[in-house]
Amino acid sequence: MKSCQNVQESGVSVQQPIAILDSGVGGLTVVKEVMRQLPREKIMYFGDTARTPYGPRPAEEVTRFTRQIVEYLIQYRPKMIVIACNTATAVALEDIRSRVAIPVVGVIHPGARAANGRTQTGMVGVIGTEGTVRSGAYEQALKQLSPSTQVYSLACPRFVPLVERGNFRSKETFDVVESSLQPLKERAIDTLILGCTHYPFLSETIASVMGKDVALISSADETAREISTILHDRNRLTREGELPVHQFFCSGDPRMFRMIAQEWLGEQIELTPVVWQVPKIV
Amino acid sequence: MKSCQNVQESGVSVQQPIAILDSGVGGLTVVKEVMRQLPREKIMYFGDTARTPYGPRPAEEVTRFTRQIVEYLIQYRPKMIVIACNTATAVALEDIRSRVAIPVVGVIHPGARAANGRTQTGMVGVIGTEGTVRSGAYEQALKQLSPSTQVYSLACPRFVPLVERGNFRSKETFDVVESSLQPLKERAIDTLILGCTHYPFLSETIASVMGKDVALISSADETAREISTILHDRNRLTREGELPVHQFFCSGDPRMFRMIAQEWLGEQIELTPVVWQVPKIV
Repeated sequence: MKSCQNVQESGVSVQQPIAILDSGVGGLTVVKEVMRQLPREKIMYFGDTARTPYGPRPAEEVTRFTRQIVEYLIQYRPKMIVIACNTATAVALEDIRSRVAIPVVGVIHPGARAANGRTQTGMVGVIGTEGTVRSGAYEQALKQLSPSTQVYSLACPRFVPLVERGNFRSKETFDVVESSLQPLKERAIDTLILGCTHYPFLSETIASVMGKDVALISSADETAREISTILHDRNRLTREGELPVHQFFCSGDPRMFRMIAQEWLGEQIELTPVVWQVPKIV
Repeated sequence: MKSCQNVQESGVSVQQPIAILDSGVGGLTVVKEVMRQLPREKIMYFGDTARTPYGPRPAEEVTRFTRQIVEYLIQYRPKMIVIACNTATAVALEDIRSRVAIPVVGVIHPGARAANGRTQTGMVGVIGTEGTVRSGAYEQALKQLSPSTQVYSLACPRFVPLVERGNFRSKETFDVVESSLQPLKERAIDTLILGCTHYPFLSETIASVMGKDVALISSADETAREISTILHDRNRLTREGELPVHQFFCSGDPRMFRMIAQEWLGEQIELTPVVWQVPKIV
């Protein structure tokens, strides 16, 4: 990953894009919030739809995939990298931070920080993929901030496939969400972290199942806010110029990606399909 | 201010304190939130109660006072400086940022960022001191993020003296708040920034006057959150150790400061009075 190391922060212009990556379409929830909160910033998004979901994969494989996407995006000289995938953040954030000279933001600490600020009782729930929950990354982040926090984590492996198929509001979706969240409803949590960037697609359903006394924290929304904070702290916010044209890349079926992205973002997108080279078997 | 320039960020330990300064007791609202959100972090607070309020003072004078406090605090080698005073942030943030090698955080951008994320209608109100409103700093920060935001600013010069006298919930306070906010009630804002760190002391009254359809943004709470984000981004969060003992300094009457601080923070404080040397007239 030599190319990454050549990118020195001091040489990066504020006009350069923010690179956002995910295993699939989930990171679009971060994109939507960055577009809303930072309309002047140019975004470059990579959805690894050919290899989604990352949740059940071994950590080594997720790290390898994440490095590969970063290597692809870094050629466009972004000013920041956002790992908009909880699974990849949990296993690969520190690895990527150590390899590139620009700021790298994951989605776990922003969600943990917001939940830590919001909870009154100190009883916080986290839902995520198997990989995220197994990593214990949210629990670690929450307890690092406030050691007395009680954390209840639950893997919801059936949510991502629903979202990747564009199935957001059906009866099937409601039933899956309701039965999956049952173990958490028995806990006296007052705050629930949507610890997967796919889950905001299902947030209406999740809210209706959990009831109004549980505050939902979208790691996507909170990450957009922290992107703004960090770019400001580092004097890297775009201050002027034309409204940007964003660029999207996906490694799988471009029709499905385009359909979901355009519905979610409410606008047409510029999409470039990317084909991963499969190593030849000799 | 040579001493400031000698503090290199790389030489600062994570165990060093966060230095927080204000014209008086207002910055204690930031302190309370930092204590809640980051209980492991040691805080060093300076309230310039001998010279409060800063709001009506000329910009040059506020800048000079702020530099003087920073010079005082920097001898303790803090890892970050927080200007927990909107007036001082508005006029002196960039000056202080250019003078010290550690991160310097003000209270205006965190509040603006939170309001920008929260508003649905793009109609945002800001209340602050005369100095803050005159500076246009919130409007500039909000429009830099989202150029289409409509900002309605209102100076409330009678609020700070009420707080500095510890007068939070009297009939007099209600009447002052109600009559002061009247011009803003005629605007269709959906979000109101408490653009002075003193105002959270009055937040219950302000909320009851503005009604439940207006979301209040406390620049104090939001600043605590951003302190956490920036320390994390820079690998400067304290990760372990005993619970810290905080240190407080004030330049005016220590009895009044102690009374307000202990009521607001709900615990005893270690307070050191500081006497500014008055230049001799020759």
